[in-house]
Amino acid sequence: MQPPSETTDPLSRLMESFQKLPGVGPKTAQRLAFYVLKQPEVFASSFAQALITAKESVKPCPICFHLSSQAPCEICQSKHRLQQQVCVVADPRDVFALERTQEYRGLYHVLGGVISPLDGIGPEQLNIKSLLERTLTLDEIILALPPTTEGDTTSLYLAKLLAPLKITVSRIAFGLPVGGDLDYADSLTITRALQGRQLVS
Amino acid sequence: MQPPSETTDPLSRLMESFQKLPGVGPKTAQRLAFYVLKQPEVFASSFAQALITAKESVKPCPICFHLSSQAPCEICQSKHRLQQQVCVVADPRDVFALERTQEYRGLYHVLGGVISPLDGIGPEQLNIKSLLERTLTLDEIILALPPTTEGDTTSLYLAKLLAPLKITVSRIAFGLPVGGDLDYADSLTITRALQGRQLVS
Repeated sequence: MQPPSETTDPLSRLMESFQKLPGVGPKTAQRLAFYVLKQPEVFASSFAQALITAKESVKPCPICFHLSSQAPCEICQSKHRLQQQVCVVADPRDVFALERTQEYRGLYHVLGGVISPLDGIGPEQLNIKSLLERTLTLDEIILALPPTTEGDTTSLYLAKLLAPLKITVSRIAFGLPVGGDLDYADSLTITRALQGRQLVS
Repeated sequence: MQPPSETTDPLSRLMESFQKLPGVGPKTAQRLAFYVLKQPEVFASSFAQALITAKESVKPCPICFHLSSQAPCEICQSKHRLQQQVCVVADPRDVFALERTQEYRGLYHVLGGVISPLDGIGPEQLNIKSLLERTLTLDEIILALPPTTEGDTTSLYLAKLLAPLKITVSRIAFGLPVGGDLDYADSLTITRALQGRQLVS
């Protein structure tokens, strides 16, 4: 899949750059590189600028560890958010997912992963100490960690850790997705949906 | 899928840049942007450099219209290639595909597309005039245009155009791919394979 020229060739170097991205194989890298070359000059230059600016300016927020070009991030700075409520997520992407719902009005805390002994990730590798430091001003913590073994472990760990404090700790509900069909749902999801059943009257 | 901040936000701008690439939707753009941010500083800067350098230096070869940072391109410059043989392809990507086989030792001519009246592409939009100008020094032209209606039309058009000249004009074979199973091949491919049948003894 390598073009015939050596790697100092600008076209090959561009393909290699694309190929370093996750999920981009040699074929896709070639297609993307040719696409860039077909665009007007400004396409490549603004893309390059976006890469450099983002890498330079976007850092984890010192309070909640969400990625932002401001410190503290826009959410931590906002006066319109509930300052006593924190939603704990594994990844900055989860913050975006929750923000898209426009339902949640509290703050966030990004752990930076979940406890996973197999990957060498223990509680000390995550932003848990900083979460505890924030608890003084909080009265509710919502755990929105993924419904995986690791997510469950981390949620249990945090729930135990937070139990002695006077804070309401809850975990988001897991079950059948909206529009989902029981017939197509996997058994674990159905099990979770059964476990999480709620009284209707 | 848009993050909550305005488009002057560096992270959003990086996501938007990725999303302009073909086949990259908002989810993938977000994933790629976060990936870049997680990498060391040099990743973004060398990616940016590769984009700018490629866009600045890679241009169509003035002879064969293959993309290259040299003019003429390495293939046209090479003394080890058959100077009388030209393979006509639609796109620079096809040159890479043929080069990977290490079978073909002649030169190339990139048309820049195929005749497609529906897309407003006629013979005058393609690098056909420049091909005719090269014919003086050639004794063989191999048409390697895609086995589509447009590719067939373009091949026929070129074959007619080249017929008065003393040049052998051939088209690459279409049929069952190596490792392909008759049972899984589509009818058109089988039809092409039948039409292109060759005597075995």
